[in-house]
Amino acid sequence: TIQQLFKEIFKASLELQEDDHRKALLVSRKKKPEDTIIDINGEKIGDGNPHFIMGPCAVESYEQVAAVAEAVKKQGLKILRGGAFKPRTSPYDFQGLGLEGLKILKRVADEYDLAVISEIVNPADVYKAVDYVDIIQIGARNMQNFELLKAAGSVDKPVLLKRGMSATISEFINAAEYIISRSNANIMLCERGIRTYEKATRNTLDISAVPILKQETHLPVMVDVTHSTGRRDLLLPAAKAALAIGADGVMAEVHPDPAVALSDSAQQMDIDMFNDFMKELTK
Amino acid sequence: TIQQLFKEIFKASLELQEDDHRKALLVSRKKKPEDTIIDINGEKIGDGNPHFIMGPCAVESYEQVAAVAEAVKKQGLKILRGGAFKPRTSPYDFQGLGLEGLKILKRVADEYDLAVISEIVNPADVYKAVDYVDIIQIGARNMQNFELLKAAGSVDKPVLLKRGMSATISEFINAAEYIISRSNANIMLCERGIRTYEKATRNTLDISAVPILKQETHLPVMVDVTHSTGRRDLLLPAAKAALAIGADGVMAEVHPDPAVALSDSAQQMDIDMFNDFMKELTK
Amino acid sequence: TIQQLFKEIFKASLELQEDDHRKALLVSRKKKPEDTIIDINGEKIGDGNPHFIMGPCAVESYEQVAAVAEAVKKQGLKILRGGAFKPRTSPYDFQGLGLEGLKILKRVADEYDLAVISEIVNPADVYKAVDYVDIIQIGARNMQNFELLKAAGSVDKPVLLKRGMSATISEFINAAEYIISRSNANIMLCERGIRTYEKATRNTLDISAVPILKQETHLPVMVDVTHSTGRRDLLLPAAKAALAIGADGVMAEVHPDPAVALSDSAQQMDIDMFNDFMKELTK
Amino acid sequence: TIQQLFKEIFKASLELQEDDHRKALLVSRKKKPEDTIIDINGEKIGDGNPHFIMGPCAVESYEQVAAVAEAVKKQGLKILRGGAFKPRTSPYDFQGLGLEGLKILKRVADEYDLAVISEIVNPADVYKAVDYVDIIQIGARNMQNFELLKAAGSVDKPVLLKRGMSATISEFINAAEYIISRSNANIMLCERGIRTYEKATRNTLDISAVPILKQETHLPVMVDVTHSTGRRDLLLPAAKAALAIGADGVMAEVHPDPAVALSDSAQQMDIDMFNDFMKELTK
Repeated sequence: TIQQLFKEIFKASLELQEDDHRKALLVSRKKKPEDTIIDINGEKIGDGNPHFIMGPCAVESYEQVAAVAEAVKKQGLKILRGGAFKPRTSPYDFQGLGLEGLKILKRVADEYDLAVISEIVNPADVYKAVDYVDIIQIGARNMQNFELLKAAGSVDKPVLLKRGMSATISEFINAAEYIISRSNANIMLCERGIRTYEKATRNTLDISAVPILKQETHLPVMVDVTHSTGRRDLLLPAAKAALAIGADGVMAEVHPDPAVALSDSAQQMDIDMFNDFMKELTK
Repeated sequence: TIQQLFKEIFKASLELQEDDHRKALLVSRKKKPEDTIIDINGEKIGDGNPHFIMGPCAVESYEQVAAVAEAVKKQGLKILRGGAFKPRTSPYDFQGLGLEGLKILKRVADEYDLAVISEIVNPADVYKAVDYVDIIQIGARNMQNFELLKAAGSVDKPVLLKRGMSATISEFINAAEYIISRSNANIMLCERGIRTYEKATRNTLDISAVPILKQETHLPVMVDVTHSTGRRDLLLPAAKAALAIGADGVMAEVHPDPAVALSDSAQQMDIDMFNDFMKELTK
Repeated sequence: TIQQLFKEIFKASLELQEDDHRKALLVSRKKKPEDTIIDINGEKIGDGNPHFIMGPCAVESYEQVAAVAEAVKKQGLKILRGGAFKPRTSPYDFQGLGLEGLKILKRVADEYDLAVISEIVNPADVYKAVDYVDIIQIGARNMQNFELLKAAGSVDKPVLLKRGMSATISEFINAAEYIISRSNANIMLCERGIRTYEKATRNTLDISAVPILKQETHLPVMVDVTHSTGRRDLLLPAAKAALAIGADGVMAEVHPDPAVALSDSAQQMDIDMFNDFMKELTK
Repeated sequence: TIQQLFKEIFKASLELQEDDHRKALLVSRKKKPEDTIIDINGEKIGDGNPHFIMGPCAVESYEQVAAVAEAVKKQGLKILRGGAFKPRTSPYDFQGLGLEGLKILKRVADEYDLAVISEIVNPADVYKAVDYVDIIQIGARNMQNFELLKAAGSVDKPVLLKRGMSATISEFINAAEYIISRSNANIMLCERGIRTYEKATRNTLDISAVPILKQETHLPVMVDVTHSTGRRDLLLPAAKAALAIGADGVMAEVHPDPAVALSDSAQQMDIDMFNDFMKELTK
């Protein structure tokens, strides 16, 4: 029948269209079938092995960061995370040490021969940040802060882009395209949980996003187990699931004394827990 | 019983705590019981009467904006909206005319004696924008772009803050607090729909947010019927509901020829529809 | 170009398909353009005037129901609601009086010349219920309890069908189709809020669903302001919005002494508040 | 300070309350610390090893079921799934073969020495079903069909309870409590994805629910990878993640010829794919 015919044409053109659009994107696997591998201080993220980015939620002091750096180094890891500019829901919460925090990170990084990653929140700060950090992190709240994406796309420094709190996978991929379209192709995607009705976890870890992002793009995909679950007791199981489903690595927060942390005290690991965490994941 | 007693203490302290926190916020009605009224070009937003902010999604040309301005003026309205910096999901979509767009808006505003509102997306642009616009709009994607909020809080210009796509009411109020804490108290809140599983509308208009925001804060509350519904056929019914539930005004998009609009073509009203819309709402 | 042509064919066939499907449904306005009006005890629901269905959450005793019935009668209303079978999250919560509850409702209904509506939860009870109630209510949790829908479709008694907690509008319409396809065409739809991430209200009232349901189907559409908001202070504003956007009526809960109610104590109105509520809505 | 004191009392009583409630539930691990192990045809679900429940979405014919049974048997599995009563969104979609379907399942089960699981949707059918099936499945749409839960709780037959489409973990646990409170303690919980804004997958697999359910209850926890993802290409990665995070087993759909399946044709595996799936998961 003619209607049947129409339906087939309809399906064919639909697929054609979607295909076209995805092919057009620079981040898409159609454009570049091989995996992008990002070499940071010897860690080749995207090479098929699991990688770990660990460190405190916020930089609070040299001593605090150094204590974590030492533990990270002992585990043979190469990358340290730490927040200097902290986006906080309330203006009266601790906002991070800012540039001072970046300087502490840089000092610790040099002393322990670690690479550092830190979140940048103002487009104007991107150009300064390249002197202090090895990876620029763009946080969930800023995934569609397009001015920030454009700034990050115009510097020669790897970028870790977190998925927005309620971003679709398609919007996430387009956000990465903002960066690559400005010529910076060293992008890591990071699933960090999405906002749903379920409140047993801080967010809902959308674990299926990992294989979808790996299929659709050629970029490495990390999973932030701290912000997706918001629960210390779920960090290890979530990390196991992330690696099993094909993530290129795991991010989590470690603090020498979580009980007195200036932010996220309920979800950071202490050093002992971190050592157990690594042992379980690498055995 | 002792357990019963505990429960009552528990409840009492819970209320005490929440009360405390809300009292502390400068935007809260506990801090300032009287309604904030913002006078823009003679429109006293927050005075108990309905106000309307209408205009094209994006500034495309002088002629396009002038055509809408004329219609807006004829309806006796005082404020014109128009986007110069357009946050778009894809980097390959029309990104707005930028500063050029603000200049067009300013020229039309002067010619038709209208106030103008336009979205600013980069903290650095806030200081320039004050020369061109009468209200700075902060869009949904930037509700937690705290650098932008701080910049908007440090200029002497009314701000219209849109609720983020998946922001809770509490986060929305805290975002406004970022602005007022920097000393700018002329803030309008704007409900524009939240992201849910339902796809019959572009977003889900959270109409109950209006009376809650009016109760919790002393700020005027607008409803953007265009972005909350994303459907031309729902603009009028949604506007009726918004005014019935106590909103201080309604925002909607008007374009001389929506079919050829560079953005949001499916949801803008043409001039005739706009005239009918106003007639229905003001009869 | 050929691609352009394909796109147009694509669009045309897409619309054709959707159109076809909607036309096929017995509840759709395409199938029957005129509004369905349901006459219950003289209330013509769907006739363009607002109607009200009020009463306690749960039937607790003859005295309690009679007290509300008297108030409802005084306001000139004709329909009383009251739950006999209560679906509760925990098996240890009050489950309703069951058949005993229906008998109380029936007795009060006869004494005050009111029609009654009550929720039925077991397909096997539908056939018994017709002797006691004037409207069978199917609750949100049972919107896709297809066996219950089929049973309700096979009796000659109006049905009020509530939208499921996370049902799409399309699924809601299809649930109504289950009833009408068994030959019972006296169906009222009831929007009662959907589950979202926002917790300031018990559910998120999806007010836009009202005009969409009115467009897509020929059935009357009610709004349950009690369950959508879960807050006593929002009942009146939500009811105003519902009527402004075109709902055929409003449902809400009234209890002689909400503080001691066996369920939903935080959201039921007492008699004084109910009288004010009606006064405000009918002035 | 007195306020500080209040806060501590508040916290203490909050924990006390929650603790109390959880302890009270018969399904909770506080009530029974040891894992519940359910022995079905020699498969000891909950014993720490992975178990698999595979079979077609719907029973369509003896031949179809037998073809899958043979493949399931060859893989050394012991349990076959197959739907006889199919809850479908539209009344005009294939509704399953009903009792006839159960008889086919029973015949195949006997011939291949497999246990069978099938969904029951009407409380009245539970008592008949026990003659045909080894496990009663309660589907997502019926998770809060409390009459069905009560019926399932009153027979001596293991029950697999699926999480509702938008059920919280707490509601899920309470639904299981309905069953156990009627004395049937042989319950398996099954995570099958929740409804969110993300449409790249049919539902969003809430993988974190698995360790939470294992912590909170003593019941085995399965993951249905077919309905959570709705995508054939994600079945294997999702199954790996499920087992890595501690699920007691995986459910998935297998059909001899998915392209002609009467339901779920886009997401069932064919026999070859099923064999690869098992090989990958058991290597």
